[in-house]
Amino acid sequence: MRTTTGWQADPSTRTLRRTTLQRRDLRPDDIAVRVDYCGVCYSDLHALHAHKSDTDGALVPGHEFTGTVSEVGGAVTDFAPGDPVAVGNIVDSCGTCPMCQAGQENFCRDFPTLTYGGSDRQDGATTLGGYSREYLVREKFAHHLPAGLDAAAAAPLLCAGITVWEPLRALAVGPGSRVAVAGLGGLGHLAVKLAVALGATTSVISRTPDKAGEARSLGADRLVVSTDAGQMEAVRDRFDLVIDTISAPHALAPYLRTVAMDGTLSQLGHLGPVTVNTLDLLIGRKKLSSAGSGGRPSTAAMLRFCAEHDITADIELLPSSQVNSALERLERNDVRHRFVLDMSDLD
Amino acid sequence: MRTTTGWQADPSTRTLRRTTLQRRDLRPDDIAVRVDYCGVCYSDLHALHAHKSDTDGALVPGHEFTGTVSEVGGAVTDFAPGDPVAVGNIVDSCGTCPMCQAGQENFCRDFPTLTYGGSDRQDGATTLGGYSREYLVREKFAHHLPAGLDAAAAAPLLCAGITVWEPLRALAVGPGSRVAVAGLGGLGHLAVKLAVALGATTSVISRTPDKAGEARSLGADRLVVSTDAGQMEAVRDRFDLVIDTISAPHALAPYLRTVAMDGTLSQLGHLGPVTVNTLDLLIGRKKLSSAGSGGRPSTAAMLRFCAEHDITADIELLPSSQVNSALERLERNDVRHRFVLDMSDLD
Repeated sequence: MRTTTGWQADPSTRTLRRTTLQRRDLRPDDIAVRVDYCGVCYSDLHALHAHKSDTDGALVPGHEFTGTVSEVGGAVTDFAPGDPVAVGNIVDSCGTCPMCQAGQENFCRDFPTLTYGGSDRQDGATTLGGYSREYLVREKFAHHLPAGLDAAAAAPLLCAGITVWEPLRALAVGPGSRVAVAGLGGLGHLAVKLAVALGATTSVISRTPDKAGEARSLGADRLVVSTDAGQMEAVRDRFDLVIDTISAPHALAPYLRTVAMDGTLSQLGHLGPVTVNTLDLLIGRKKLSSAGSGGRPSTAAMLRFCAEHDITADIELLPSSQVNSALERLERNDVRHRFVLDMSDLD
Repeated sequence: MRTTTGWQADPSTRTLRRTTLQRRDLRPDDIAVRVDYCGVCYSDLHALHAHKSDTDGALVPGHEFTGTVSEVGGAVTDFAPGDPVAVGNIVDSCGTCPMCQAGQENFCRDFPTLTYGGSDRQDGATTLGGYSREYLVREKFAHHLPAGLDAAAAAPLLCAGITVWEPLRALAVGPGSRVAVAGLGGLGHLAVKLAVALGATTSVISRTPDKAGEARSLGADRLVVSTDAGQMEAVRDRFDLVIDTISAPHALAPYLRTVAMDGTLSQLGHLGPVTVNTLDLLIGRKKLSSAGSGGRPSTAAMLRFCAEHDITADIELLPSSQVNSALERLERNDVRHRFVLDMSDLD
């Protein structure tokens, strides 16, 4: 086994503490990654809150990180030491089911192995995430980080970025498309940047008017204030795609009203049960969908697109020693728009 | 005013009683229709159960009927006395909103005037439905009944038929499409006939295996028994479109599992709030939609298609005097697959 340093959940305090972690020995198709930057995702906070005991397996969060290849297994062909690399929230899958064959490993019928909190397909060990200085991953599930992308600001592309990319591409958003993004957090601000770069006319829907300047600086045409009935009425039946990134439970009806005929509301911010009135879908032949993560080909395409259009996340970079403060601030929405941890302080 | 005879709700008994009804005088763009056959829709039952008092307006159900033009207004150009005619659940709309302009009068922003229980756009009177011997309707909202279609068996096309036609056409179902129809009632059996005629490989999903022969006789390739876990697993991620016509509230998750990647579950049988787990949409990038009724162009196209493919509903024809028995049997699902009332006994 190899050892590294990382931030592991302490169930008694529900905070993370610095500790020594064990990593598997390098397998033939593995690469070892020195983790340089890891984004802080809402999922990490949820996982920490849900984590009860180390008897369920240790919890080391982190599933959107960039780094540098430090070592490669004997069968690795696509990476060499020194390569900049990016890893998202999936690190393995069965490889044989129809979803894997279609390049949608995120929908693997045998369930994909998650970057943390998953179960390794070979030794059954609980996977420990990117809040650490080293990560071992099959080369197949690592991505080359394209030249020109800032490694810190690119880290959130691997979860937040690909999650909003999926509905944009599934619905073939491009010039002429009318897109609205509800919520301007980690997912939302990347959704605006990507939709604008794809050529869509893009609006932001937000509870308060104070984000108008920011919406425009991201490339959006306008801000629609969701609490202003007149403004919401003015965009009734307007958008081909509404990307709903609001993380708190909320009524879908007001957002469905803004969807154009045959359009789609993609609900990304809140995973779990949602209630929708079928009449709100029926009137205008509207659709409800969701998305989360993406397959390997789609993730690679998203990274290429971001490099071509110089898109990364707007981040606040913190030394990893401030991870508990970052999580606490994330919980009260005090982030603009994504925390990224600098792992160099773990050396 | 004109008078006719029809079946009106008696709030004290929640049954229908034969009575004399008043109809408006013929307007310049009206046609007068002698109603020959009227289908019995679940909506009629719901309306009867919800109807509390005649002070809310009289209730005469019926919104899928065929008949014969008996008289035309001075400005009518498209119909002449003696023409076979069909009327569905919408008899007027604003005509100017974007939905009406797009030929989707069923989504009129100013709300379409329903065939019964609506409010006439000119005089404000409560509309009284097709369970009657005469109906007056703007010619724009009447359809020519194509030659060759049995007038009694065609009546249910105007509500049940168009409702299942909409998702089939919105999703461009044709040869190569894989369609499943859940529930084999009034909506479901027409969905199977239409999907098969469009060239789709069509399955029926039913709780019990006893409908296998019937499913095949309608043209379906197979019956999938929803209570058989093995059969449901065998069709996991299989169908591009699942048309869910089950009228009782039910969990959507088992049906969403049978939807193929990027496919759609169209929930038609139960209108109102439904709960869905966004993870069941996320995994496989699936969509939830609904449908009900259709616009004028779509309804006309559906009628032409049915004439070309000799499609009508499987009906049990009853004299209108048996309407209360029909509603009672419908309530306990004792129908195969649609009751149609013969209105000639109202003369």
